[in-house]
Amino acid sequence: MTDLKALIGSITPLDFNYVEQARARQAQLTKPAGSLGRLEEIAAQVAGITRSVIPVVQRRAVVVMAADHGVTAEGVSAYPKDVTPQMVLNFLAGGAAINALARQAHADVIVVDIGVAADLEHPNLLSRKVRRGTANMAREAAMSEVEVLQAINIGIAVLENLAEQGLDLVATGEMGIGNTTAASALSACLLDVPAEYVTGRGTGIDDQQLAHKVRIIERAIAHNAPDISQPLDVLAKLGGLEIAGLVGVILAAASRRIPIIIDGFISSAAALVAWSLAPTVRDYLFAGHLSVERGHRLILEKLDLEPLLNLNLRLGEGTGAVLAMHIIEGALRTHKEMATFSEASVSNKDNA
Amino acid sequence: MTDLKALIGSITPLDFNYVEQARARQAQLTKPAGSLGRLEEIAAQVAGITRSVIPVVQRRAVVVMAADHGVTAEGVSAYPKDVTPQMVLNFLAGGAAINALARQAHADVIVVDIGVAADLEHPNLLSRKVRRGTANMAREAAMSEVEVLQAINIGIAVLENLAEQGLDLVATGEMGIGNTTAASALSACLLDVPAEYVTGRGTGIDDQQLAHKVRIIERAIAHNAPDISQPLDVLAKLGGLEIAGLVGVILAAASRRIPIIIDGFISSAAALVAWSLAPTVRDYLFAGHLSVERGHRLILEKLDLEPLLNLNLRLGEGTGAVLAMHIIEGALRTHKEMATFSEASVSNKDNA
Repeated sequence: MTDLKALIGSITPLDFNYVEQARARQAQLTKPAGSLGRLEEIAAQVAGITRSVIPVVQRRAVVVMAADHGVTAEGVSAYPKDVTPQMVLNFLAGGAAINALARQAHADVIVVDIGVAADLEHPNLLSRKVRRGTANMAREAAMSEVEVLQAINIGIAVLENLAEQGLDLVATGEMGIGNTTAASALSACLLDVPAEYVTGRGTGIDDQQLAHKVRIIERAIAHNAPDISQPLDVLAKLGGLEIAGLVGVILAAASRRIPIIIDGFISSAAALVAWSLAPTVRDYLFAGHLSVERGHRLILEKLDLEPLLNLNLRLGEGTGAVLAMHIIEGALRTHKEMATFSEASVSNKDNA
Repeated sequence: MTDLKALIGSITPLDFNYVEQARARQAQLTKPAGSLGRLEEIAAQVAGITRSVIPVVQRRAVVVMAADHGVTAEGVSAYPKDVTPQMVLNFLAGGAAINALARQAHADVIVVDIGVAADLEHPNLLSRKVRRGTANMAREAAMSEVEVLQAINIGIAVLENLAEQGLDLVATGEMGIGNTTAASALSACLLDVPAEYVTGRGTGIDDQQLAHKVRIIERAIAHNAPDISQPLDVLAKLGGLEIAGLVGVILAAASRRIPIIIDGFISSAAALVAWSLAPTVRDYLFAGHLSVERGHRLILEKLDLEPLLNLNLRLGEGTGAVLAMHIIEGALRTHKEMATFSEASVSNKDNA
């Protein structure tokens, strides 16, 4: 906990000196002022994050944290929990959506078993299992305090290791059958809204199953009675190991001044926890996309984040975040590569 | 005109046989059904366009048509018209936003002088000047019937030449000081709405200038009295040479079954003309983004196109369209590269 406090304390706001310098450069580029819209804002934000007037995002990774959820015993998901380890192997074989999109975006896919309820071995798998899935939160706390800190520290260590090797941009991804249930329970508490406001169809349940899912979440909240002023208590009782791991990834990336693209609902629930612990983290976040999962919009509104894409995705894995890397790159390429009015001998509005 | 009629007649609807085969493949890929949202729809549409179950978009180009507008004499733009040739040279030197974004998307930038009011020479410039800018539509028809057909035929020839060399995906781009005025006049007529509904700030005019721009457009429409049931008449009297050129590009690409990404307001005005001439063209179109220009949304609604991006861009040049190429590529990469449930031994919802 002391380490975590020190890490949180090391997260500082954007450096506005660099934000202003980036904006000044934008004003000189051969285009009407402001005509690149959000691309200009992105470039300025990344400048403030990285303390570089002309930043680059060459070395990229998506961290995919995988874990199981005891609450699947309550029948909250359309898929059996065997799919978690099956999909982890699919990630490692390069056959999942995240692999295709990461190849396109030149991003490494870092797959972490932080709590899959099956034995998994693979040379490219980071085996960091805290336990074989969480406990069933409808009956008991999903994790102990020790376990949740362990999972966060794993996320921190994974990110710090990547940063040591060189990392300019990180996306968050996850896999875990049942994890929309955990994300909904977490967001209901941290946003202080009824469970039904933030509970969606996950991988594809019907109306009756959705009503059941809401009841299970309500029961989990009532039974565990987390202290909503204590994000780590909420995370331990209602969260997931992969969500806790991503909290660590996000905090560590912000601490190292690395821009972070969060993916959909699960990743955003992790961002919500991270922000609850360290509000400054928000300066480092980009919302990759707006998911179909209904709770996602509420989290993004709370964090005051505008999604970069809105393509009706609801897959997770980091897919929307990695697809959004192209937008960030476009922002930084125009910022870096465009000629200025004077370089190109183009008349500006004011000097014409 | 006979040639144009033949070209229009050669544009056929999507081939639903391929759309269905692509959808069947999507259902087998290792993800919950529908979870890739619009990416799945894009893959199916491109399959239907290209008559390929697993299409690719390797060879890409953005056609940037440049021309001047006589209506700038009325003081409708924030920038002087000298900026048109200056920006053409900037495109050719690789210093504009479209160049940076096209490098990122591995797209060739094809720059066409179809009516710039200045002498331009450059080894990479396609010099296809119909005339040195349009006439001032506030006082007379912008183009003659002969000129508008000439400009459309240039667009057709440019596209067909690219297609001969190999082209899988084309984006439309343009440059022309004053061309939002032309696009607004065109859309007011073809959408049959008041000019003020479709007139925006272009490169950055203030409230008073905006009111003036609306009055000039109203005057141009009243003075020229185009027959709104004749898209070519509207285009000749109120359009621009670059817009007419893009009409040709769009029609020719649809005829050759090449997917087309339209950019912002100007490109979409060209698409609206093309659609008015050949409604089937809509099957071949993707809307790259939603521009800040207020008329853009109305055109996209008319064409029933949902923009792929919404990033507050208002630059033109093809920037939003080229940025959207990454979304199309993401759709086709997941469609092509993902493992099926059986290949990856992943349990599906129905076979679990």
